[in-house]
Amino acid sequence: MLIIMRTNATPEQVSRVVARLEKNDLQAHLSRGEERTVIGVVGDIRHLIPDRFARLPGVERIMSISRPYKLASREFIPKNSSFPLDGVTIGGEGIVLIAGPCSVESRSQLLETAHAVREAGAHALRGGAFKPRTSPYAFQGLGEKGLELLAEAREVTGLPIVTEVMSPEQVPLVASYADVLQIGARSMQNFPLLHAAGKSQRVVLLKRGPSATIDELLMAAEYILSHGNRRVILCERGIRTFTRTTRNTTDINAIPALKARTHLPVILDPSHSTGHWEYVAPVARAGIAAGADGLIIEVHNNPEDAFSDGGQSLKPERFAELVRQVRVIATAVGRHVTQPRTAMNPRRENAVTSHVDAIR
Amino acid sequence: MLIIMRTNATPEQVSRVVARLEKNDLQAHLSRGEERTVIGVVGDIRHLIPDRFARLPGVERIMSISRPYKLASREFIPKNSSFPLDGVTIGGEGIVLIAGPCSVESRSQLLETAHAVREAGAHALRGGAFKPRTSPYAFQGLGEKGLELLAEAREVTGLPIVTEVMSPEQVPLVASYADVLQIGARSMQNFPLLHAAGKSQRVVLLKRGPSATIDELLMAAEYILSHGNRRVILCERGIRTFTRTTRNTTDINAIPALKARTHLPVILDPSHSTGHWEYVAPVARAGIAAGADGLIIEVHNNPEDAFSDGGQSLKPERFAELVRQVRVIATAVGRHVTQPRTAMNPRRENAVTSHVDAIR
Amino acid sequence: MLIIMRTNATPEQVSRVVARLEKNDLQAHLSRGEERTVIGVVGDIRHLIPDRFARLPGVERIMSISRPYKLASREFIPKNSSFPLDGVTIGGEGIVLIAGPCSVESRSQLLETAHAVREAGAHALRGGAFKPRTSPYAFQGLGEKGLELLAEAREVTGLPIVTEVMSPEQVPLVASYADVLQIGARSMQNFPLLHAAGKSQRVVLLKRGPSATIDELLMAAEYILSHGNRRVILCERGIRTFTRTTRNTTDINAIPALKARTHLPVILDPSHSTGHWEYVAPVARAGIAAGADGLIIEVHNNPEDAFSDGGQSLKPERFAELVRQVRVIATAVGRHVTQPRTAMNPRRENAVTSHVDAIR
Amino acid sequence: MLIIMRTNATPEQVSRVVARLEKNDLQAHLSRGEERTVIGVVGDIRHLIPDRFARLPGVERIMSISRPYKLASREFIPKNSSFPLDGVTIGGEGIVLIAGPCSVESRSQLLETAHAVREAGAHALRGGAFKPRTSPYAFQGLGEKGLELLAEAREVTGLPIVTEVMSPEQVPLVASYADVLQIGARSMQNFPLLHAAGKSQRVVLLKRGPSATIDELLMAAEYILSHGNRRVILCERGIRTFTRTTRNTTDINAIPALKARTHLPVILDPSHSTGHWEYVAPVARAGIAAGADGLIIEVHNNPEDAFSDGGQSLKPERFAELVRQVRVIATAVGRHVTQPRTAMNPRRENAVTSHVDAIR
Repeated sequence: MLIIMRTNATPEQVSRVVARLEKNDLQAHLSRGEERTVIGVVGDIRHLIPDRFARLPGVERIMSISRPYKLASREFIPKNSSFPLDGVTIGGEGIVLIAGPCSVESRSQLLETAHAVREAGAHALRGGAFKPRTSPYAFQGLGEKGLELLAEAREVTGLPIVTEVMSPEQVPLVASYADVLQIGARSMQNFPLLHAAGKSQRVVLLKRGPSATIDELLMAAEYILSHGNRRVILCERGIRTFTRTTRNTTDINAIPALKARTHLPVILDPSHSTGHWEYVAPVARAGIAAGADGLIIEVHNNPEDAFSDGGQSLKPERFAELVRQVRVIATAVGRHVTQPRTAMNPRRENAVTSHVDAIR
Repeated sequence: MLIIMRTNATPEQVSRVVARLEKNDLQAHLSRGEERTVIGVVGDIRHLIPDRFARLPGVERIMSISRPYKLASREFIPKNSSFPLDGVTIGGEGIVLIAGPCSVESRSQLLETAHAVREAGAHALRGGAFKPRTSPYAFQGLGEKGLELLAEAREVTGLPIVTEVMSPEQVPLVASYADVLQIGARSMQNFPLLHAAGKSQRVVLLKRGPSATIDELLMAAEYILSHGNRRVILCERGIRTFTRTTRNTTDINAIPALKARTHLPVILDPSHSTGHWEYVAPVARAGIAAGADGLIIEVHNNPEDAFSDGGQSLKPERFAELVRQVRVIATAVGRHVTQPRTAMNPRRENAVTSHVDAIR
Repeated sequence: MLIIMRTNATPEQVSRVVARLEKNDLQAHLSRGEERTVIGVVGDIRHLIPDRFARLPGVERIMSISRPYKLASREFIPKNSSFPLDGVTIGGEGIVLIAGPCSVESRSQLLETAHAVREAGAHALRGGAFKPRTSPYAFQGLGEKGLELLAEAREVTGLPIVTEVMSPEQVPLVASYADVLQIGARSMQNFPLLHAAGKSQRVVLLKRGPSATIDELLMAAEYILSHGNRRVILCERGIRTFTRTTRNTTDINAIPALKARTHLPVILDPSHSTGHWEYVAPVARAGIAAGADGLIIEVHNNPEDAFSDGGQSLKPERFAELVRQVRVIATAVGRHVTQPRTAMNPRRENAVTSHVDAIR
Repeated sequence: MLIIMRTNATPEQVSRVVARLEKNDLQAHLSRGEERTVIGVVGDIRHLIPDRFARLPGVERIMSISRPYKLASREFIPKNSSFPLDGVTIGGEGIVLIAGPCSVESRSQLLETAHAVREAGAHALRGGAFKPRTSPYAFQGLGEKGLELLAEAREVTGLPIVTEVMSPEQVPLVASYADVLQIGARSMQNFPLLHAAGKSQRVVLLKRGPSATIDELLMAAEYILSHGNRRVILCERGIRTFTRTTRNTTDINAIPALKARTHLPVILDPSHSTGHWEYVAPVARAGIAAGADGLIIEVHNNPEDAFSDGGQSLKPERFAELVRQVRVIATAVGRHVTQPRTAMNPRRENAVTSHVDAIR
């Protein structure tokens, strides 16, 4: 932390800052330039409240130089984290594809789509049972009935399940059905939910909030990590900007910027980041070209009849075509699309538990 | 709702859209221009899924012309809503001032600040017991102990209490202490929390999310209103934009824009919307000049020692000066600052309940 | 300037940075923390290229601590700058009002509006002769004919003229008619134009670009100031953000933030910053409450027939009502609306020239 | 154009709108819904001023349904435009690479870099002679001396030259040296410059402004096209958003969104859109994967010594590696990187002129 004094700060004002630092068992390191004095703070500042210095007379502003997160930081853990998602490794060299409908709507819709994405090469099935909706009058999801259908889809396809959890008290229920707990963009800073997810034994897919900075996303991950759960996947899903041509703006820069800062796996959700099915494939390809570890894509067996997000859902045949393109692009960056698991669903719970231990 | 066809849409494509509308018991009203056909949709479209039409061949896009909220809309309820906040009316001609520390830190800090803001003319006391913090390592609030201190501050000053609630399961606890449940900016689209607040008997202060549109804020209010609670105060607290000179960008336009769209009271939080104490008073005055029904301001008896947000907190004497300025500005817009209640705290619960009935 | 080294930077990497600084006649001041080394740079760094250090091995990033502008800075010139605008002082205690149509459309439109705003209390007349328009098919202004009509309006009302100039070669022509050269938001970083305006003898009204930071606005002013023209008025006119309820987002925080950083006068344009006539008066009042030195407002004698910006133009009677409100608000911040000049237009050129000298 | 009436609009108010339309030789097509009336406008509305209707009593708002541009629109010209850039076709199946230093700094710097990018596979050489700089104290470019060096680099490498022009009066000078006139992001809405570029015989590379919408970019292109120059290349170079991890936010969605709306070639500038050399290659690859027709990339023979933008410049060997990756990615989208021209520089002027005629 650096404390930048005003150009007209008096020696007494500088001394007062130094005294306050020393009272907090910190060392002050003064750098007197031609224009102003800068005070470097040496010591453990993690629990320091910078505002307390910002208000002292003669202080212009406080500059932080350390990253505010530790467990999520590549400075702390230089090597990529990877962990198994029901037999498939996420965060390794292989690229992982998660696909499925926005909402679970019916048994036939889900199973038909699940079979199709599996055939096209997907490694996991997404589907919403509890749906966050802007309007109280919109379809809110099938709830536990949806979870049951997801479990059935897992039985018949062998694909692990990714589904959203919206509040801390839902975590045990959703965790009893799902392989991956998705924390949606609007919940990225729902701290009680992050806490609960950190206490669970499930992989967590954490989506970036629409106005969250990279640091805020990593701090949200830090909540989960610091509560004991090391298996966090980060997901760029578009940010809100002035442009309205597309639903959100895919922050493609965030892919390499995240990979530079964190060891956690990073995937892209081009369905939400564009909001328009015609742009999903181009932007999905861009994500892999930029270094993403995977994709999560909305696929619906019949988008014209979807209860939600039909406009941004791919038909299964388009998804299959995209997978073929992604295979080529992966080679350009020295990677490959992971081979999907072929055996059906053996000893799921044991496998997950042991992997947790291995990671810790 | 309007369905805009592409310039090259065929008559068959138009017919297919019309047929689908009729299957949904809606009427299609065709308007054939020189370039393209526009289809007006007549009927109750509240439960219609626009995406289902966006995906039909020949459709370029869907335009909504109705506002998506009803209970929050001034079109539905043209007159201003007002309701009592422990004896003081919010939403009427009078301007209401809420002040107090960011966090409840200690008995002496809270009581000293509470007395000071009361003396300066505040009508209610704010103070956080459960604190949403970006970092898991930052001070997270005193929890229920903080609520107890807030209740004590109410006893001795007579000021009603405004405090944040972060998850649905906290609602009963917080509601048992507080007069107003604050839903923070990061929780604006925490739908389970909105649901729980809608079921409670307390006034709800709903803060706009940092990247929420006006419509999204009103839809969040609609969640609360539609679950039975009619006493919602909206709060502009700054949005996230490219500018970083200040912590957030005060969307001052939102004050008149909200007042034009909704009958609910609208207040401004200049502490969070600027993030810098030197700008709090100018922007607070601006809020009243623009037509806000009140202000919520962070005041701390000793900002240099605050556990959080010291940099944006006013000292009591500056708050008192601001109140004097606000009194003058109120007259410029044909209003006044409400006379604070003088008697101490009589029959709180009964009063609140009966007012709920009156509003319904 | 501070050079932040990576946590794993080697002593050799630090030495290389130091050596490069010394080669540039700068002193390096090393601060070795527990995590990393920070190098303070002492000396005149105005012509240093920070990127040259950012690319050296072991460097994480460069932090600037000085403001990049000097002539525009309040650190350099602590007292408010003020200068005469044809007999009226701008930048002093008094608040100055500029009003008139978006575009000069016809003699009767301009004169009628000019008389009306003068009567309501305006101190200067705005009106566009050269119009920057998003579409090549939209009305592009009357050009020199418009300038002639503005000159006539000045003759008959005595109001000084504010009008936009769009390219460097237009400066002499526009300066021969106008009292104030307006540089529009889209031209804020048209550096050849800033250069030409800096060489002219006219007051310059510099509008903030829709995505310009406060620093960028002040750097644009620095271009004008450094080319010899000290009479620059800054104008907040709204920034582009995600919100689309209004045409732009009024950055009301920018008013006190600019006043804290610069000695130059700061005014607000609520017509462009809202884009909607119903919000112009509330936001204009907010600007004065926040500390602006003046307002520039679009007024049209018949907005329904305006060639441009009719939707955001006030009718003269509404402008007059706003002036009355502004008079009250000014008193709340210890100011007043300047008394308009009453005599007609005497010795304009001499007066302007002598004031330029006085300022220099 | 659609005119949306308020829910409480009277029949008289509707009639007044209809009468005004008919006075403008337009037909009104009324659609009376349950809540409100919508008036469709039939006829040539290109010169209509929508604000004139927005101000009529009972009107809520105006909705535009046509695209505001014609010559740039794919609705008007469905097939991709392509044109020769000194023997290489841009806008065809082949992908075109433009590379070179931010600024021309010296003969050796330019020639060394030019040879290196040519060897790596670039098709054109970029380099700034007139530099728009935020600070008046920063290096402003070598001016005409820089143009002369660019011409020499063309002679010895055969690469056509891309360089920026900053004001209308510079156009003849720059056009006498350069093959492509670059209009920078800050000049995107410099309408006199667009006009001058439209009158020139050179290919124009038009960069998107940092807060320009897709429509505004296409309207800027429309200025050039409507003044007679059909050879316009559009360039996404990052937009300004809340995120500051990178200098700008690459709007990767804009690539497919532009390709859907316009027939003009679209390229990406990952150097400015990221501002950080480590992210340039990932984002460049993403651009090609998303469907861009080319790239423009800053390459410097010695970035540590660059006068400007060293932090975002690639070294020649990294550029060469990127070209190899791009070749693979191109195949994934059914394209290829264009074969660079090998013969040296024959009869440049004649070739360009004849191509202009062919296109017109």
